[in-house]
This record gives sequence, structure tokens and C-alpha cells, in this order.
Amino acid sequence: MLIVMEKGSTEEQIQAAVNTIEKRGYTARPIPGGDRVSIGILHNKGSVDAAHFLGLDGVKEVIPVTKPYKLVSRELQKENTRIKVGDAVFGNGSLPVIAGPCAVESREQILSIARSVKKAGAKLFRGGAFKPRTSPYSFQGLGEEGLQYLAHAREETGLPIVTEVMDVENFDIVEEYADVVQIGTRNMQNFSLLRRAGKSRRPVVLKRGMSAMLQEWLMAAEYIMEEGNPNVILCERGVRTFVRHSRNTLDLSVVPAAKKESHLPVIVDPSHASGVRDQVVPLACACAALGADGIMIEVHNNPDEALSDGAQSLYPKQFADVMEKINAIHAIVGQK
Amino acid sequence: MLIVMEKGSTEEQIQAAVNTIEKRGYTARPIPGGDRVSIGILHNKGSVDAAHFLGLDGVKEVIPVTKPYKLVSRELQKENTRIKVGDAVFGNGSLPVIAGPCAVESREQILSIARSVKKAGAKLFRGGAFKPRTSPYSFQGLGEEGLQYLAHAREETGLPIVTEVMDVENFDIVEEYADVVQIGTRNMQNFSLLRRAGKSRRPVVLKRGMSAMLQEWLMAAEYIMEEGNPNVILCERGVRTFVRHSRNTLDLSVVPAAKKESHLPVIVDPSHASGVRDQVVPLACACAALGADGIMIEVHNNPDEALSDGAQSLYPKQFADVMEKINAIHAIVGQK
Amino acid sequence: MLIVMEKGSTEEQIQAAVNTIEKRGYTARPIPGGDRVSIGILHNKGSVDAAHFLGLDGVKEVIPVTKPYKLVSRELQKENTRIKVGDAVFGNGSLPVIAGPCAVESREQILSIARSVKKAGAKLFRGGAFKPRTSPYSFQGLGEEGLQYLAHAREETGLPIVTEVMDVENFDIVEEYADVVQIGTRNMQNFSLLRRAGKSRRPVVLKRGMSAMLQEWLMAAEYIMEEGNPNVILCERGVRTFVRHSRNTLDLSVVPAAKKESHLPVIVDPSHASGVRDQVVPLACACAALGADGIMIEVHNNPDEALSDGAQSLYPKQFADVMEKINAIHAIVGQK
Amino acid sequence: MLIVMEKGSTEEQIQAAVNTIEKRGYTARPIPGGDRVSIGILHNKGSVDAAHFLGLDGVKEVIPVTKPYKLVSRELQKENTRIKVGDAVFGNGSLPVIAGPCAVESREQILSIARSVKKAGAKLFRGGAFKPRTSPYSFQGLGEEGLQYLAHAREETGLPIVTEVMDVENFDIVEEYADVVQIGTRNMQNFSLLRRAGKSRRPVVLKRGMSAMLQEWLMAAEYIMEEGNPNVILCERGVRTFVRHSRNTLDLSVVPAAKKESHLPVIVDPSHASGVRDQVVPLACACAALGADGIMIEVHNNPDEALSDGAQSLYPKQFADVMEKINAIHAIVGQK
Repeated sequence: MLIVMEKGSTEEQIQAAVNTIEKRGYTARPIPGGDRVSIGILHNKGSVDAAHFLGLDGVKEVIPVTKPYKLVSRELQKENTRIKVGDAVFGNGSLPVIAGPCAVESREQILSIARSVKKAGAKLFRGGAFKPRTSPYSFQGLGEEGLQYLAHAREETGLPIVTEVMDVENFDIVEEYADVVQIGTRNMQNFSLLRRAGKSRRPVVLKRGMSAMLQEWLMAAEYIMEEGNPNVILCERGVRTFVRHSRNTLDLSVVPAAKKESHLPVIVDPSHASGVRDQVVPLACACAALGADGIMIEVHNNPDEALSDGAQSLYPKQFADVMEKINAIHAIVGQK
Repeated sequence: MLIVMEKGSTEEQIQAAVNTIEKRGYTARPIPGGDRVSIGILHNKGSVDAAHFLGLDGVKEVIPVTKPYKLVSRELQKENTRIKVGDAVFGNGSLPVIAGPCAVESREQILSIARSVKKAGAKLFRGGAFKPRTSPYSFQGLGEEGLQYLAHAREETGLPIVTEVMDVENFDIVEEYADVVQIGTRNMQNFSLLRRAGKSRRPVVLKRGMSAMLQEWLMAAEYIMEEGNPNVILCERGVRTFVRHSRNTLDLSVVPAAKKESHLPVIVDPSHASGVRDQVVPLACACAALGADGIMIEVHNNPDEALSDGAQSLYPKQFADVMEKINAIHAIVGQK
Repeated sequence: MLIVMEKGSTEEQIQAAVNTIEKRGYTARPIPGGDRVSIGILHNKGSVDAAHFLGLDGVKEVIPVTKPYKLVSRELQKENTRIKVGDAVFGNGSLPVIAGPCAVESREQILSIARSVKKAGAKLFRGGAFKPRTSPYSFQGLGEEGLQYLAHAREETGLPIVTEVMDVENFDIVEEYADVVQIGTRNMQNFSLLRRAGKSRRPVVLKRGMSAMLQEWLMAAEYIMEEGNPNVILCERGVRTFVRHSRNTLDLSVVPAAKKESHLPVIVDPSHASGVRDQVVPLACACAALGADGIMIEVHNNPDEALSDGAQSLYPKQFADVMEKINAIHAIVGQK
Repeated sequence: MLIVMEKGSTEEQIQAAVNTIEKRGYTARPIPGGDRVSIGILHNKGSVDAAHFLGLDGVKEVIPVTKPYKLVSRELQKENTRIKVGDAVFGNGSLPVIAGPCAVESREQILSIARSVKKAGAKLFRGGAFKPRTSPYSFQGLGEEGLQYLAHAREETGLPIVTEVMDVENFDIVEEYADVVQIGTRNMQNFSLLRRAGKSRRPVVLKRGMSAMLQEWLMAAEYIMEEGNPNVILCERGVRTFVRHSRNTLDLSVVPAAKKESHLPVIVDPSHASGVRDQVVPLACACAALGADGIMIEVHNNPDEALSDGAQSLYPKQFADVMEKINAIHAIVGQK
């Protein structure tokens, strides 16, 4: 933390700031500059709250220097975290693809899609049994029945299951069926849910919040790790911006940025980002070229009849085509 | 819902779209235009999912016409909802002010602040016992002990208590102590929590999500109302934008816009919006001039020592000054 | 400028950074911290480009400490700049209102509106003769003919004229007719135009760019001042965000923030910010309560027939009502 | 255009809206719905301004249905526009790369970089002689001297030159030296400059504005085409969002979206989007995989000493590596 004093701040103001810092148990180191004084704060354990100093007399600005996260930080752990699920490994340079419908609708639907994505090369199967919906009047998912269909599809295909958990109440049951538990965008800062996920034995896919800074996303992962679960997979899925040609704006820069700050694997979901099938195919190829640690793609056997998010789901044939391209691209950029 | 076909779409494509609409139980009404055809969808109950039609052959765009909310809509209920808490009424043209510290820190702090804000004219007292914090290492609140201090302050001052509930697990206990339950920004789309709040007998302050559209915010209120609780107070608290001179960007336009769409009262929290004391004072005056149904302001007896958000908390003397201005401004704009 | 080295960066890396700094003529001051080293850069004249150091080995972050602007800065000039135009003064604590139609359409329109806004208490008259339009097929303004109508209205009413200049080519002619020259949102970083405005003898209203940081806006004003024109009036007019209930999001926090950083007057245009008449009235009142140095409001004698931006223009009667409220509010907050 | 009336709007209100429409020369077609009436507007030439109807009594919303652009629209011209410059073609499925430094600094620098990017496979050379800079105190470019160095590099390497023009005043001279003229982000809605570019015989690279909607960008291209210049290359370069881990947020969805709406080629500049070298390499690969019509990359022989934007410039060796990957990826996705 660096405290920047105003030009012409007095000795008294500087001393008052120093006192405030030291009263909190930190070391204050004044740094006389060309035309103003700054004060460094040292020996802090954990993060220091800028708010403590921002309102002091003569203080112009408070600038955080160190980052507040620990367990997720690459400064703590240099090597990539590798998370193995079934045949797939996230974080070892491979490119596992998670595919499936937005929502579980029926046993037949689930089996049919699971078989076709397995055939095309997907390594994990996704599908929502508990659906977070903007409207209380929209289809809310099949609940445990949906989880059973997913389990059935796993038996038939061998594909591990990724499915969303919406609340602490249903965590036990989701955990029982799922191989990987997903925490959705709207729950990225549902801290009770994060803590519960931290006590789980399942790997967690943590979707980035709709307007989350990189640092907030990593802090959400820190909540999970701090409770004892080291297996967090970060998933970029688009952020909210002013644009209207896509549902969200896929922020691909965050992938190299997150991998620089953290040792956790980072995957991308181009389906929710764009919301339109025509954009999902090129964006999925872009994710492969980018060096992501995995891709999550929505596929539906009959998108035009889907109960949710049909417009962004690929047809099985489209998915098979895109898998071919993805794998070829990964072969070019993957060796690093 | 209006479906716009591409220029030169064929009769077959148009008929296919009509069939898809009618298969879902709606009425399709083709509207031949100058150089393209549109198709209106009628007789839908509730909202129609654009996704069902967006991927069809020959369809260029799908445009929602009606809004998906019902219970919150002013089309359903013309008169303002009025919510009475203690001496205050939200929604009747008055301007009740909710004041207090960000977090409950100690019995003495709470009593001292409660007394000073009561004296300055606040009608409700706020303070967080369960604190949602970006970092797991930050002060998380005193929990039930904090609620007890708030209850004690209520006994001493008569001010009703507004406090945040973070999860379903602690809802019962928060509800037991609080007069008004607050759902925070990060939980605006925590649907399990919204449903639980819908079963509560307490009025709910529903803060707008950091990047929530007006429509999403109203749909979150719809979740609460749909479970049976009609007493929802909407609270604008700033949205996330690119700016860096304030923590968030206070979106005052949303107040008249929300009041046009909905009969629910809309209040504003300028403290969290700006994050800086120097901005809170002028913004609070602006809220009063705008015709908001209430204002929520952070006040701390010793902001420089506050455990959270000290920089945005007003000193008691500042708060008393701003209350005077607010009341004088409200006397000018209030009579409508 | 503060350079933060990575944890565990070597002596060689630190020395290399120091050398790079000193090679550019600055003083480097290494600051050993708890677990990493930072290096302060001193004795820089003007701003230092972070890019010079960001790519160096072992450098984690480069943090600007001082601000790059000079002439606009309140650190250079403590007292408010006061700009007198006709009867109005911007920056002395008064609240002059600039009113008029979006575009000049005819001699009769201009005279009629000018008379009614004068009667209601406006101090300056606005109207566009050269119109920046998103579409080349939209009405582009009457050009010099429009300027002549404005001049005629000035003769009749005594109100000074504010009108937009879109390019260097037409600057001479606009300057000849106008009392205050306006640079629009889309031209905030048209640096050639800014320089030309800096050579003008007219005060300049500089509208904030649609996604301009405070610092960029002040730097645009710096371009004008640096060429010799000290009379710059900053005008907030809403920024682009994700919201859809208003055309832009009025950022009222920027007013106290800009006034803290700079001595220049800051006014607000709620008409372009909201784009909807129903929002302009409450927002104009909010601007008055906020302590802005002026307000710019669109008024049209016949908004339903206006050639541009009719939906955001007030009816003359509405404007008269809002002027009354604005003046009463200013009487409350104005004495500071 | 579709006008949606409020529930319960009267016959008189509907008739008044119809009259207003027809008075403007359009055809009004009322569409009775389940519980509200909408009115379609037909036979409009060019775009209709929503503002004309938004304020009418009983009107709830005005929804644009058709797009306002013509010449840029794929509805007008089905086949891709192909623009040939030297050996490169934009729009024929190939992937020409434009490379070079941000700013022209010296004759030696320019020659050295031009030779190395040519060797690595770039098809065009870029470099700025007139630099738009946020600060008036930053390096503003060498002007005509810079153009001469660029011309010299062209003679030596055969690479055509892309360089930015900042204003109408310098257009003639830039046009004289450049093979392709670039209009920068801050000038995307400098309409006088767009018109001048429309009279040029040179192809134009039109960078997307920092917060431009797709439609506004296409309308800016329409300004150029409408003046007679059909050779416009659209260039995505990142938009401004709340994120802080990159300078801007690269919006890759806009590439397929723009190519769907328009026949013009769309290229991407990942250097300005990210602002950090470590992100440029993966993003450039992503652009290749996406199916862009070209990529623009900053390369500097000595980034640590660059006068502008050094941190985002690739080293020549890095550029050569990325060219190999780009070409291999393009070979996979290019054949469509």
C-alpha cells in the first residue's frame, strides 16, 4: 500500500498518517519525492483496507501495491494446478472440452446428446438440473430427476458430469451425483456457497461474475481454497458491456492475465458469452488458439425446441465439426 | 414478441416460423412490411423466450415487445405501494432516511451512532452484522452478537433496524431481529435467497446488482412478490462502469425509470455508489432533488477507525448538515 | 511513478530497472518492502510513460502516482476559474442555465424558443447549426443560415449564444457568431480541433467523451489551455454503459471529482444524458442540488415535430416549472 | 419501426399516433395485440427517428426494426468486398498481416522493423507519423518527415504503407504517401474527416470507436462509402469496459457480427486492445482462429526504448514466431 500525500501537505499531516499506520500494527516508511511525499506501508499480513487512510487530512490517494490473494497466487505456487477428472486433465496443457445442453429436459434428450458429444470427442458432459433463471416464470430445471438422468448418461458413456449448484441447501445432493460442481455467474460472490464448495471433495468450476474484476474472481476462488478445496477451475463466460450484438462480451484477455496471476486452470464458455450459435463456432476456435485450459460448449439435439438457451446451442453436427478444428488448432499452439 | 424476417425470406420460411409459433400455443400474426415481413406473437401468457425463434431459417431478429414482469408492474397496479416501518413510510411522497454504519463493531459504537442519527432526523437505523466481503481475510461481521447490539439500539432510540441477510441459513435469525431485511448487490440474483425473502413477513430492501438491467432488477423483485411478500423496496446503489473517480457510478436515471415501470418504492444509497465521503454529501442532495422515496447513508462516529468502508462514511456532524439540506430540498420538489 | 518488482526479483533485475530509469533522466529510489522491492521515480517533468518500464524483466506492475495534467490542475491554481458570458458567470457559485433546442430549424422556431427560455430565466441560449449525426442521411443542420438565426435571437433577447463547432474548417465562422463555442462528445479527443479552440478568444464548453475517464477529459481541456485559452467549461453529459432505460448514464460523481482535481467550472447536460423528457426534469433538479456550475437543458416549442432529439426536449411550460425548482434548490445548497 | 402503445391506451391516442406517422409521409399499420396495440411504420426511405414518436401520449416504446445503413449492408451486396493492396487482399478469405511500430521514430528504426516484419511474412507496414495523444506533452509524431521514412521503407521492402490521418488539414499529405489511410478510434465519429476519406482514392482502415455500437461503426463506414469510396476495412481494437487487467477489452464477437451485417472486410488489432505484450501473442492466434480478414500487430526493434506504446509491441523474434502460428491456424480454419 502506498499513501500519496497532497502537494504542500504539512509535517503534522504526514506524521498523523504515519501514526495511523503504525497504530494498526504496520510499518510506515515515508518517501520524500520531488514535490510531494508518499508513505509506504510494510509488514502487513493480508490486505490493508485503503478506506482506513483515504479520508485522512492531506492524503490525496491510496494505491494498493500488493495483491490481496494468497492461496490462488502464482507467487505462492509456481507450477500449474492440475485437476484430473475422468480422462481429462485441466491445467496440463491439454484442451478438454465440456459439452452438453443448457438444461436437462428428459432422459432421452440427455442420452442422445451425451452419446453424440462423446463420439465427437468431448471429455466431460454438462447439463443443468437446477437452473438460475431471471424470471420466476421460466423453466427452473428438473431438480433431482435431472441429476438422475445425468448419472444415467454417465453410466452409458463414461463421461464425468459437470452440473450447477445454486444454493447451500441442494449442495449435498448435487455433490452426490456430480463429478464437478459448477458455481454460476450470479453466484460468484455468494460467499456462503463458496465456503460450502470449499468443504466439498469435488472440483469446482467457478464462473466469472458478469462484471467481476480479475481480482474479485480470484478472491472468490480464494474463499473456496481457504476452506480446503484446492481444485478450482476458473471459467470465463463473457462480461456485461454496452454492446448489443452479443449477449455478453467474451473477455479473452482475462485468460492469459489470470494464468499469469494464478496457478489455477482457466477455461472458457463461448456459448453463454455470445448467446448466438453463429458466433459460438468462431469463438470456440479462438479459445483453442488462445491457450485456454478447456472449453465449455452448449450442444443440443434439437436446439429449436430447447427449453432454455436454444439459440446458442450447437447442432451435434456443428459440434463435431468444431471439435475437429479445435483439436487441430490446439496441436499448433499447445506445445508450450 | 416481434419476429423480423430477412429481406427476401421465402414463403416457406415464413410459414415455418408461423408453425413454430403456433406449435407453442401462441397466435402468429404476419405483418407484411415495405420490404420485409415481420410476425407478431400474440396471446402469450408470461414472457416468450426469444431463443426459440432466433435460430430459425430466414429469421433476422427477435424483438421483445411486452415486459416479462407482472406483480411488480405499474400496468397491474397503478398506485404506489406504500410500506410503513415505524414512523417512516416508503412510497407516499415522503423522504425517509436510513442511516448508520457499514458494519456493527461494538455495542458502544452502535448506540452512539444510533443516537446521533436519530437526533439528526433519520427514521431507520442500518448496520451490518453479516458482511459480504470480497476477501475471506476481511472482517466478516459480528453475526448474532451484532444483531443484539442493533436490537439494543432500537430499544434505546425507537429506530427500526435495517440489516443485511446473506444466506438462507441465517435468514430466520436475521428476520427475528430486523424490522427490514436487506438483500445485497451480490445477491440480487441469488434466487434461493429471493424466494426465502418472499416467505418473510418483513419488508425487503432489494439492492440493485452491480450490472443489473432495470428489467432484471424488477424480475428479482418479482421473485419475492411471487412468493407472497408484497413489501419490496428497490435500492439503487451504483453500477459498475469504466470510471475510476468513484467506486461505482450512481445511476439516478433508474429512479424515474423504475417508478414508471413499477409501483414499488425506490430509494438510493449514495454511500456505496461513490465510496468517497466528499461525493456522498452532494449526491445525497441530488437524490433528494430527484424525487427518490428514501435515502440510505452511511454514518460512523469514527470513520478513520472503521472496520469497513470508513472512507465513505459521514461524520455525525456532516450527516446532520446534509439532513438539513435534504429536508429543505424535499420540501421544494416533494409536492407532486 | 512507482515500479513494483516481483517477489524474488534479483539484484540484477532491480539494477537494470534503476539504470533504465536513470538513462531517461529521472531519479530512481529503490524502496525495500516486506517481501518485494518497489522503485520510486522522482524528478520527472511532465508525465512518465508506464510503457517504458512495464515490459522489463522482473517488473510486476507500474503504478502512476502523480497526475499528468498541469494547467487545469487545482494544485496549480487553488481558486475557481470564473468565466463571464453576458450576465452569467460560470464558477462563482451561481447556477446559470443554458437552454434551447437541439438543432436550429427556422428563424421563427429560434425566436420563439429564445423568448420563452429568456422569460423563464435562462442566461444563455443554445442551438446547433452544424449537427454531428450518426447517420449521413439524418438532418445535418442549417449551417451558416442557422448561425444567423441564432445571432438574430441574440439581438432580440440579449441572450449570448452557445453553439457547436464540428471541425477546424468551420471554426472561424462559428467563432464569429457564437459567444461560447461547444466541442461535442464525439470530438473530445479531436486534438486538432482542441488546439484550434485553444487559439480562440471564445470560452469553450468541452463535453465529456462518451467513455472518457476524468483524466482524459481534463487532458483534453489541457490541450485547449496549453494553446492559450484559459476559458474552458467542462460539461458532463452521460457516459455509455450497459443500461437501456436511458440513452446514457449521467455520472454525477464526476462533478465533485472534477472540481476537486481542477479549478475549471463543471456544468451538466441532463437532456443528452437521459434522452427522455420524463427523466430530464428530475435529473435537472438533481444537478442543481449537486452543486454544479451550470445546467444545459434542451427546450423546444414543439418537441413532437423537432428535427432531432425531440423526445428529450422539454416543453416551454415544463422548462419554466423546472427553472423555478432549480432556483429554489440552488438557494439551499448554493452557499458554500 | 414499431410503436408499442400502453395497455389501455385510448382510440384517440392511437389515432393521434397514426396521424403523426402519416404526416411524416410514412404508412401506419396498427396491429391489435392480446392486450395492447402496436403500430408498424412502413414505406420509410432511410431510417426513422424514434424520437419523433417517443414522447407522444399513450406511447410506451418505440422499437427500430430495420437498420439505418444501406451501402455497407450485406442485404444490398451479398458478396464480400475485396480490397487489394500490394500483394494483399482483404476480404477474400486470406489473412494479411499489417505490422510495424506504433510511431515512426527514425529512418533507421523504420527500415530495421520493416525488413524484419517483411521477412516474417507481413504484407503491409504500419507506423504513425501523426500521433493522437491523450496528453499535449507526449510525443506527437514526426509529421511529414515520418511519412518520408515510411515511403523510404516501402521502396526498400516493397511493403505498402498504412498510416493514420488525424485531420482534414493533413489529409492531402498523408494520402500522398500512404497506400492505406487509417482513421483512429478517437476519430470514428469525426464526420468531417469521414467525408474527406470518402473522397479519397485510398482504401481506409476505420478503427472502431472506444465505445461504439456495431451499428454506429457501420454508419461511420456508410459516411465514407456515401461520398464515393467503397474501400473501407473495419478494424476492431478493443472497447472500453470496467476491466483493469488489459487496456481495453477485445470484442471478438463483433467480427462475425459485423461480417453478417456487412460485406466489408473486418480485421483485428490485438496490440491496442490488450496493451500488454504477453496478451498480444495469444490474442493474435485467437484472431486467426476466429476467421478475421486480417490482423494488425505492433512490432518494435527495441520496445523498451520506444517513444510510445512500447509495452504492447512485440520483439521481432516474437513476431516471427506468432506469424508461424497464425499461418498454421489460418490453414485450418480458412477454407470456408
